[in-house]
Amino acid sequence: MRRYVHDQLFIHSDSAQARRGLSWMNRLMVTTIFLAIMLTVLASEKTLFEPHRRLFIATEMAFGAIFGVEYLARVWAVVEDDPSAPAWKMRLRFMATPVALLDLVVVIASLLPFFFSDVAVLRLVRLLRLAALVKFSHFSIALRELMHALSDRRYELLVTLALGGCLLLLGATALYWTEHEVQPEAFGSIPRALWWAVITLTGVGYGDVTPITPLGKMFASLVAMCGIGLVAMPTGIMASAFSDAMQRRRALNDPTLGPLPGDETDLT
Amino acid sequence: MRRYVHDQLFIHSDSAQARRGLSWMNRLMVTTIFLAIMLTVLASEKTLFEPHRRLFIATEMAFGAIFGVEYLARVWAVVEDDPSAPAWKMRLRFMATPVALLDLVVVIASLLPFFFSDVAVLRLVRLLRLAALVKFSHFSIALRELMHALSDRRYELLVTLALGGCLLLLGATALYWTEHEVQPEAFGSIPRALWWAVITLTGVGYGDVTPITPLGKMFASLVAMCGIGLVAMPTGIMASAFSDAMQRRRALNDPTLGPLPGDETDLT
Amino acid sequence: MRRYVHDQLFIHSDSAQARRGLSWMNRLMVTTIFLAIMLTVLASEKTLFEPHRRLFIATEMAFGAIFGVEYLARVWAVVEDDPSAPAWKMRLRFMATPVALLDLVVVIASLLPFFFSDVAVLRLVRLLRLAALVKFSHFSIALRELMHALSDRRYELLVTLALGGCLLLLGATALYWTEHEVQPEAFGSIPRALWWAVITLTGVGYGDVTPITPLGKMFASLVAMCGIGLVAMPTGIMASAFSDAMQRRRALNDPTLGPLPGDETDLT
Amino acid sequence: MRRYVHDQLFIHSDSAQARRGLSWMNRLMVTTIFLAIMLTVLASEKTLFEPHRRLFIATEMAFGAIFGVEYLARVWAVVEDDPSAPAWKMRLRFMATPVALLDLVVVIASLLPFFFSDVAVLRLVRLLRLAALVKFSHFSIALRELMHALSDRRYELLVTLALGGCLLLLGATALYWTEHEVQPEAFGSIPRALWWAVITLTGVGYGDVTPITPLGKMFASLVAMCGIGLVAMPTGIMASAFSDAMQRRRALNDPTLGPLPGDETDLT
Repeated sequence: MRRYVHDQLFIHSDSAQARRGLSWMNRLMVTTIFLAIMLTVLASEKTLFEPHRRLFIATEMAFGAIFGVEYLARVWAVVEDDPSAPAWKMRLRFMATPVALLDLVVVIASLLPFFFSDVAVLRLVRLLRLAALVKFSHFSIALRELMHALSDRRYELLVTLALGGCLLLLGATALYWTEHEVQPEAFGSIPRALWWAVITLTGVGYGDVTPITPLGKMFASLVAMCGIGLVAMPTGIMASAFSDAMQRRRALNDPTLGPLPGDETDLT
Repeated sequence: MRRYVHDQLFIHSDSAQARRGLSWMNRLMVTTIFLAIMLTVLASEKTLFEPHRRLFIATEMAFGAIFGVEYLARVWAVVEDDPSAPAWKMRLRFMATPVALLDLVVVIASLLPFFFSDVAVLRLVRLLRLAALVKFSHFSIALRELMHALSDRRYELLVTLALGGCLLLLGATALYWTEHEVQPEAFGSIPRALWWAVITLTGVGYGDVTPITPLGKMFASLVAMCGIGLVAMPTGIMASAFSDAMQRRRALNDPTLGPLPGDETDLT
Repeated sequence: MRRYVHDQLFIHSDSAQARRGLSWMNRLMVTTIFLAIMLTVLASEKTLFEPHRRLFIATEMAFGAIFGVEYLARVWAVVEDDPSAPAWKMRLRFMATPVALLDLVVVIASLLPFFFSDVAVLRLVRLLRLAALVKFSHFSIALRELMHALSDRRYELLVTLALGGCLLLLGATALYWTEHEVQPEAFGSIPRALWWAVITLTGVGYGDVTPITPLGKMFASLVAMCGIGLVAMPTGIMASAFSDAMQRRRALNDPTLGPLPGDETDLT
Repeated sequence: MRRYVHDQLFIHSDSAQARRGLSWMNRLMVTTIFLAIMLTVLASEKTLFEPHRRLFIATEMAFGAIFGVEYLARVWAVVEDDPSAPAWKMRLRFMATPVALLDLVVVIASLLPFFFSDVAVLRLVRLLRLAALVKFSHFSIALRELMHALSDRRYELLVTLALGGCLLLLGATALYWTEHEVQPEAFGSIPRALWWAVITLTGVGYGDVTPITPLGKMFASLVAMCGIGLVAMPTGIMASAFSDAMQRRRALNDPTLGPLPGDETDLT
């Protein structure tokens, strides 16, 4: 039975298993973590939390118990990794791994009294736990390829970032010059004008701060137009990076379009 | 004559007919449905509907009559599909198909009394009817290719969606932390802050809710910048997917660039 | 001398001349039209126009005179096209061409009394004149290739447009349902809600109309997220279209990357 | 020792050194310039500057001293470039180069009294100094390739710009026509309406100026939709340009994907 629990909870991710996906226990854990995150999000809304205080705390405790049981089950079953080694040594070594420590933090975060409502948000650390689990699935292959393609073009993307930074600084300075006398609250210094510059250059455009002098509007128009280029450049770089990655992959194993070779990793 | 009506109303979409496009009766139906949708949209505006109440109801009734006649004509003419089978059996079987049921719903929706103005909007179910008709044309080939290309990259697109979800949650949590004391109405809980996060990360930026503390503005700037990446990633993935689909298609039938093989489907 | 004026004003666009660019007289005309458009734009601003009324009218008259002289010069010099034909026949035939009629409209628009200030904007018809001239330059080759690439994917782009239209209608209907009781002015009918839907889906996000109910905000979030896809799809289609056009061009004339063959057109 | 200072401060950028990156002295200078720019930005905020006036001035003086020492060190060490030539001639020739003049401007800008707070912003000229240094690194290769790819498509990008300009003018004129009577302040002339048009077409959408008539809203919807195309076109062009550049590079030196040949330049 310990053997079965071990195989369910630990993922020896050879590429065969990666294609089969997660075991049912791990699927259950993914669902539980997802629900626990939802609970933390909803509990932050006072108008929901106050009338159902007990329900929220009870559910939180239940989630804490599930995470605790899972943690203990992993500590108990880890011995199966290497049956010849002494059990306590295996367990201690496992408890010192980052994944196990993260588990422990998640369990403790769940069992902390609920009263410290500002600390409750810390439970979102479960996102990390989710990420550690999701890593073993079709998503991980897609994620790794995306990251690989982006890292191939890291200098191009950094150049875009640097150009964006210069544009931000120049735009903020231009608006500071033209508007700081008329709107000292919004454009009274370069750091203040930078808030306007970010919101304009990214195309968000809240409208809480807008130029009112004709010259300021001309500079703002220029910044807004540059914003299009600043969206277009990284998009173009990413598009060519992904095209490129796809062609290289096809050149390697042409007809099947299956997963890349060298997909075998062995993590928990 | 029943033969002619049948050939006009039913589409045996072999690829030859797909290239010829819709029959004139079906073109008429597409136009009618389009006009009927327009009518439903306009009728929801009280300042238009109240002064011309009778005109609106009469036109709606006329559209209902057209849809009713078309439905009956299809039931009548469907027998031609297989002249050897018994007519009533063919008709009943046809009336049980999803497309015929959808037709019936459209007809009934048109004939419902107009007084229940909130229900009137249900007539937009005609959009589905439109979709079922438009499926047989050049559009359907383009649509199928786009869908095919996107489904090839479904994991990459889902990874983008997941990253976007994490960003939303982290951004909302950061703003909840920094702003919930100053603006309890807008940032008093994570679900409330999520509204701000969605509107910022997608670049819409209404400006109904904006951070006012310096730290909140810094986090908001980060979220706005990540928003560019969140637009750039799916765009890049789609660009490479469409490029890829185009190259595969050309590799299959190089000089003609005609429709793909295997285009023959037989739907109503 | 008539020969020289003819060669300057008329463009026999063989590809050799397309590469040389416009003649000096035509460059002068491009500049003049550009300045005349600027004048029309500035004249619409009362605070500029009223104090310098005479200057504006005089400049406008001067531009009108230049356009008149150019028109007469073209009518005079067109005879050189075919010296053997009778002069009056050539001139009449030229005056009936669309380009010459457009010229005449531009001249008349310039000489109309300036008092009808609402009509003055009609002078922007000069934009067309500008387009007719600019057609013969490096721009025309780039423009033609862009148009060609886009027309290759017209069905894909129309599918995007149709999906966008459906999203607009569904989004507007959803917000009409959830918000028409709370905000009858902004969401009291589907046509009214469509204004909100367009501004949200395109990512402009003025913020003059925003949902205030929780359900409305959830629907609005969905619409805003779909907006990202709606930007990403045409961008991806265009990226793959342009990539494709570039590869085809290189396959045709590999090392030179010069203009396409068959560039010879003969327009005025 | 002069030899060592020379090798540290001057970059004989053969491609070998480009790959090694900057020397430690130059890294120090990059950091110093970066910090000096930050100081200028922060000093523009009165609520930070006034309480710590002395600290800001002292730090600024310190930065000025560092830039001064570096300038003198370069003048002193430049002699090593060509030990056979007379020292004073080498030094004068170096002091007349643009890079050295820029250095001098930066030094003088730092030593100007701090009281002229509006002039203080001129210190951002250091951005140029930063650019001159950063030019020798991996960034420069990426930047050069991006610029090269964009310059290959300059006509296509200019066509997009021209189309954007026409859209701006037509949109502004349409809104001027429909709204100038209702909102004379915002749409009373075409130049005023252009502010609205830029902010809408680029997707920024502040919302400080929005149409209120039904016809105005219809035109604005059209402009907002065209805005999507106006973002999609340059993005598509850039994506295809970067793809293209990548493929050409791979065709040149296939397996290594190293820097391009002909990377040797010799600047200071």
